[in-house]
Amino acid sequence: MSDPPVADAGRPRVLILGGGFGGLSAARRLAGADAQITLVDRRNHHLFQPLLYQVATASLSATSIAAPLRHILRRQRNLTVLMEEVTAVDLAARRVDCGSRWLDYDWLVIATGATHAYFGHDEWAPFAPALKTLDDAQSIRRRVLLAFEQAEREDDPERRQAWLNFVVVGGGSTGVELAGTLIELARHTLRGEFRHFDSRSASVRLVEAGPRLLAGYDPVLSDKARRQLERLGVQVHTGAPVTAIDAAGVNLGERRLPARTVLWAAGVAASSVGTMLGAPLDKAGRVRVDEDLGVPGHAGVFVIGDLASVVRPDGSPVPGVAPAAKQMGEYVGAMIARQLHGDDRPQPPFRYRDAGSLATIGRMAAVAQFGKLRLSGLPAWIVWLLVHIYFLIGFRNRLAVMLDWAWAYWTHQRQARIVSGTAPPRDD
Amino acid sequence: MSDPPVADAGRPRVLILGGGFGGLSAARRLAGADAQITLVDRRNHHLFQPLLYQVATASLSATSIAAPLRHILRRQRNLTVLMEEVTAVDLAARRVDCGSRWLDYDWLVIATGATHAYFGHDEWAPFAPALKTLDDAQSIRRRVLLAFEQAEREDDPERRQAWLNFVVVGGGSTGVELAGTLIELARHTLRGEFRHFDSRSASVRLVEAGPRLLAGYDPVLSDKARRQLERLGVQVHTGAPVTAIDAAGVNLGERRLPARTVLWAAGVAASSVGTMLGAPLDKAGRVRVDEDLGVPGHAGVFVIGDLASVVRPDGSPVPGVAPAAKQMGEYVGAMIARQLHGDDRPQPPFRYRDAGSLATIGRMAAVAQFGKLRLSGLPAWIVWLLVHIYFLIGFRNRLAVMLDWAWAYWTHQRQARIVSGTAPPRDD
Repeated sequence: MSDPPVADAGRPRVLILGGGFGGLSAARRLAGADAQITLVDRRNHHLFQPLLYQVATASLSATSIAAPLRHILRRQRNLTVLMEEVTAVDLAARRVDCGSRWLDYDWLVIATGATHAYFGHDEWAPFAPALKTLDDAQSIRRRVLLAFEQAEREDDPERRQAWLNFVVVGGGSTGVELAGTLIELARHTLRGEFRHFDSRSASVRLVEAGPRLLAGYDPVLSDKARRQLERLGVQVHTGAPVTAIDAAGVNLGERRLPARTVLWAAGVAASSVGTMLGAPLDKAGRVRVDEDLGVPGHAGVFVIGDLASVVRPDGSPVPGVAPAAKQMGEYVGAMIARQLHGDDRPQPPFRYRDAGSLATIGRMAAVAQFGKLRLSGLPAWIVWLLVHIYFLIGFRNRLAVMLDWAWAYWTHQRQARIVSGTAPPRDD
Repeated sequence: MSDPPVADAGRPRVLILGGGFGGLSAARRLAGADAQITLVDRRNHHLFQPLLYQVATASLSATSIAAPLRHILRRQRNLTVLMEEVTAVDLAARRVDCGSRWLDYDWLVIATGATHAYFGHDEWAPFAPALKTLDDAQSIRRRVLLAFEQAEREDDPERRQAWLNFVVVGGGSTGVELAGTLIELARHTLRGEFRHFDSRSASVRLVEAGPRLLAGYDPVLSDKARRQLERLGVQVHTGAPVTAIDAAGVNLGERRLPARTVLWAAGVAASSVGTMLGAPLDKAGRVRVDEDLGVPGHAGVFVIGDLASVVRPDGSPVPGVAPAAKQMGEYVGAMIARQLHGDDRPQPPFRYRDAGSLATIGRMAAVAQFGKLRLSGLPAWIVWLLVHIYFLIGFRNRLAVMLDWAWAYWTHQRQARIVSGTAPPRDD
C-alpha cells in the first residue's frame, strides 16, 4: 500500500481531460492497460450532477453527491490524477497546456462537458444564477435561504412579497426539479418558522419559452408533469420566452413577474475546450466527431460526453445526459485498450443505447419513460429514487443520501439549510 | 401550524444577541414566558463549535454540525429569529442598532462570543488562518486538501516537501485536535492516492509558546497528550513562541520551519460588541460583569458566554467553553423569567459547575479530567465520543455524525474531502 513513483519510461501516454461521467468511465475502462494514464480536472471531485438541484434546494449536502477523483481511482496504479486547468490544446504537437506545464500524449480523450449559456444575454447572469457546479449549487442555496431571511426583516408587504417570489427559467428536467423542490421548501420545510409572514405565501413560477415542459419526453408525460407541478402549487407558464431579467424580476414580453430570486435552467453550451481544437463545431459549440467519436483528421484524439455532437442513425442527436457520456467513455476506453495491443482495425461505430428518461417533480411525483413504457406519479417517483441511489458513486454516499432522503420524507425537513457567511446587507 | 403575526402590543421585549450556546440556552429558558423575545444572529445557524476542527480536516460535512436557528426555535411562539448584524448598542436609550433598523428592548442578553486574535500580529492572518466559523473551517479544509494537490503537481522535491509540511500554532485543545487529525489525514486517509510522493512523508508540527500542551489540564494529562501525539507522528515543540509567519513558513526565534500551510489555534479575543457598551473590559476584551452576570450600572443588561469575564470564588476565571456559556444562558434566562413575573429580589450569584474537560487527539487517543478523575488513551476517547454525540443538537445531526464517524473509523476514509472552486493558480 505504498506509493511507488510512476514508472513512465517508454509506456504510451493516454491523457483524459475531465473527470465527469465520460472521463471517469474511459479511465476505468483502461484499468490494467499497459499505459501511463493521466486524468486532468480543474476540480478535485467527480460530481453526481443529476442530483445537483437537491444541493441547491438544501436537501442534500455537497459532500453527499461528490467524491474525490483520486479516491475513486486510487487503486488504478497506471493512472495519475492532476488538478489542473487546461488552457490550450495543440493537436499538431500532441500536447495539452495546463498553465505553466505541458502534458504530452499519444492518445487524448476530451470530456470537459458543458456549461450554462444565456443565449447572448450574459448581462442576465448576475440576476439569474445557473446550476452546473457545486459552487453554483451552494450559491443558489444561499440566495434562496437568504430570500426568506430578507422577507422576515422586511416591513413593507409589497417588498416582502418580492422576496417570496421565485421564478425558474427553463422547463427542462432541471427547471422542473428546481421548481418542484422550491415549492416544497416553502410550503412544508419552512412552514411555521417565520413570524412576520406565512412561508406558504411564497410563489414559485416556472417559465418555458417552448410550447410544453420536458420537450424531450412524450407529450403525455409533459402534460402530467405540468399537472403534478400545479397540484404542488407551482404556476407554470409555457410559450413564454423571457425578454428581460433584472434584480427585481423577469419580463415575458409585455408581462412583468416581480421576483427577487430568479434561477436559470434554460441553456447549455459546450465547454470552451472544444474551440481550442480547430475542429468543426455544431451551433451549441459541440465538436462534430466521427462515428467512432474521433476528431476528424486527428488519429487517437476523441471527444466524448456533453462536448461531443453525435447523431443517431435516425438523424436525432444523442442527448447530453450522464448515461450517454458513460457509454461514450466505455466505447473510447475499449478502443484505446485494443489499440494499445496493436489492434488498429476500424471499430463498429458508437451506438447510443437509450436507457430511458426520468425527471422528479416532488414528493411522490415524477415522470419516466423507458422505451414504450410511460410512468408518472408515485410509480415513476419510486423508480427515480431507486435508480438515483443505485447510480450514486460510492457506498458511503449512497448510505448518506438514503438517510437524508428517508429523513426528509418523514419529517419534511432538510438537513442542509446552512448558509455560510453572515447577514446580507439590507438593501432598499 | 400556521404563522400568525406577532402580537406584540405592550408585552415586554427581551433581546438576545447571538445564537451560540449561551444565547440559545437563554432563549430556550424563556420558552412560554409572556414576553416578546427576539434572537439576533448574523448567521442563520447555531454551530456546534467543539467539532469545528473536524469540518476543517474533512471528517465531517458542514451541515452535520450546524442547524438553522429558526428551525431549532420554531416551536417557541414568543420568539422571533432575525438574521442581522449588530452595529451599535445604546444602553442609555435601551436599543440596539442593526444597520438600518433599531431594536428596542426591556431586557438585553449579549452573547456574541469570541473571535480569534493574532496578539498584535494581524499581518500573520493571511498566512495562518484561524478556526472560528464554518467559513473558516471550509477555507482551512480547502487549503489543506489543495496543499496535497499542489505537491502532486510539483516536480522539485524541496518545493514539494514545503507543500507537505504543516504547522499548527497553539497547543490548546483546538491545536491538539487539529494536529492529531492532520497527521491521520496524511498517514491513513490519503495513503496510496498520490503518484509522485507518499502521503506519509507529510510532516505535522504543533508549536506552543508555553511550557506544555493543554495548559488548562492536569500536567500529567498534558504529558500524556504529547506522547499520544508523538506516537501518531506529530512533532511537538513547546516553549517555542512564534516570532514570524509568512507564505513559506514559521520562525521560532532563530529556528525556521518551512511550511506552505500554517494554521492558527493560539489566540482568542472577545467579540467587538463588548467595546460598544462602555463597560469595564478585561485585557482580552471581555466584559467584567457583576456576580449576577449583569453589566454594572445597567439593570436588565447581561453579558454571557465567551464575552463575559467571570471570576470564580477561588479567583480563577470561568473558562470560555460551551458548558459555561450554557450555564450562564440558563441562569440569566431564569432570572429574566422571574423578573417578568415581577420578582425583582436579588438572586444568588452565578456559580459555574465544572463538568470536566475533554480533548481528543486521534483515533482512540484522547485525554479527559472530571474532578479528580484523569483518563487518557482509549477510555478517554470513548467518553469523548459519547459526550460529543450526546450534546450535538438535533437527532438528525447525531445520526449523521455517528454514521460519518463509524464509517471513518472502519475505513480511515473521510466523506467531506470536497474542495469547491477550481484548480489553484500554479505559483513558483
